[in-house]
Amino acid sequence: MSQAQINSYQAVQAEIMKRIQGREWPPGTLIPGEMELAEAFGCARATVNRALRELAETGILERKRRAGTRVALNPVRKAVLDIPITRHEIESRGAAYGYNLVERTRAGPTPTVQARLELPADADMLHVSCMHLADQRPFQFEDRWVHIPAAPGILEAPLDRLSANEWLVQEVPYSHGRILFSAANATPREAELLEVAEGSALFIVERTTWLACSPITFVRMSYRADYSMVTEL
Amino acid sequence: MSQAQINSYQAVQAEIMKRIQGREWPPGTLIPGEMELAEAFGCARATVNRALRELAETGILERKRRAGTRVALNPVRKAVLDIPITRHEIESRGAAYGYNLVERTRAGPTPTVQARLELPADADMLHVSCMHLADQRPFQFEDRWVHIPAAPGILEAPLDRLSANEWLVQEVPYSHGRILFSAANATPREAELLEVAEGSALFIVERTTWLACSPITFVRMSYRADYSMVTEL
Repeated sequence: MSQAQINSYQAVQAEIMKRIQGREWPPGTLIPGEMELAEAFGCARATVNRALRELAETGILERKRRAGTRVALNPVRKAVLDIPITRHEIESRGAAYGYNLVERTRAGPTPTVQARLELPADADMLHVSCMHLADQRPFQFEDRWVHIPAAPGILEAPLDRLSANEWLVQEVPYSHGRILFSAANATPREAELLEVAEGSALFIVERTTWLACSPITFVRMSYRADYSMVTEL
Repeated sequence: MSQAQINSYQAVQAEIMKRIQGREWPPGTLIPGEMELAEAFGCARATVNRALRELAETGILERKRRAGTRVALNPVRKAVLDIPITRHEIESRGAAYGYNLVERTRAGPTPTVQARLELPADADMLHVSCMHLADQRPFQFEDRWVHIPAAPGILEAPLDRLSANEWLVQEVPYSHGRILFSAANATPREAELLEVAEGSALFIVERTTWLACSPITFVRMSYRADYSMVTEL
């Protein structure tokens, strides 16, 4: 590449990546400073700065204030997952959203729910489950437990037409949570609701949310095996 | 809560969350400014600033330079997933790492691989698959295709003792990629390798990585149903 071609930060990135991939700069190498690179490439220092900053954000380079910039030895990559409201996820796929309430019962928590939310066996809870449909086909089965004292108004919520997912996002803020992704074979009930064969593999997302030290809800969302969650790196 | 107790940013956050949860400040509310809140809480403006900044990062509040701070109407939450090297993931769980090469063949891509990497049928590829073990038990089956021209040195890599996952991370930088999470029923071969019953649900992670416009690798990683991937919200 001639110097004259390097006039954008993307071109600077491409040149740096070529040197890394060509082993001219193997992992761990301390690369030249911004001013030196700007001079070598015949471009502005700000252009080099932007190129290095973005490559550092992706984990390919490691920048330290005093020690300079190195080619990363063991880049730990990170992916950012959006956690959308299920209705929005379906609509963003261009499908018509449908909703069916399956069950709404005031009940004590199961041992699993107790463990996940760190609640006693006599906690006052609402067990609410529903189907989310995309173009009238089963999309997700939502099986949820809500800690009633942490979600004022949940007993009066119009859950026959609005999912607990959507109601909670609008009405009950949370400060943190945990998500688990896994797989499970469909039970007879899940198979019937999701219209798949019994034992069919399901993609499972389990989420607990909290407001400071107060547990709000535990939800287990099951998707058919033809669903996939996508994220960009 | 008396004013005297509000002397940390966590206490300011707790008070703000109480007002949001108690519907004193329902979704969409423009909340008082930093100086006003500092005065009301009897604390430093910097303390209020830190509390608001963190609540904005979690998506509970929305801050705009001129328009002030509002309680978010539809917070889209984001989760950050680390993408570790499989050996590191196993070791971070406190287990001993084990590795077995299953297959290494130079071959043309399957239609699926062609589609995922946008490569022609005659692309020069290495098909390499292996088992990752945790305390000598099956942990993950890695089934990978590598585009040889994009991974110089892969044919000489010591894949009988080092996984392609680890070799690639160290040797071949990538600029971007895509990850799909889903579930599938174990084929007879997967069942044998992962030591589960045929048809057992597997958690599947598929990843493609690229350096600029050049595809590098497609990998399908299968985990037993007792595995779960965890992330904090």
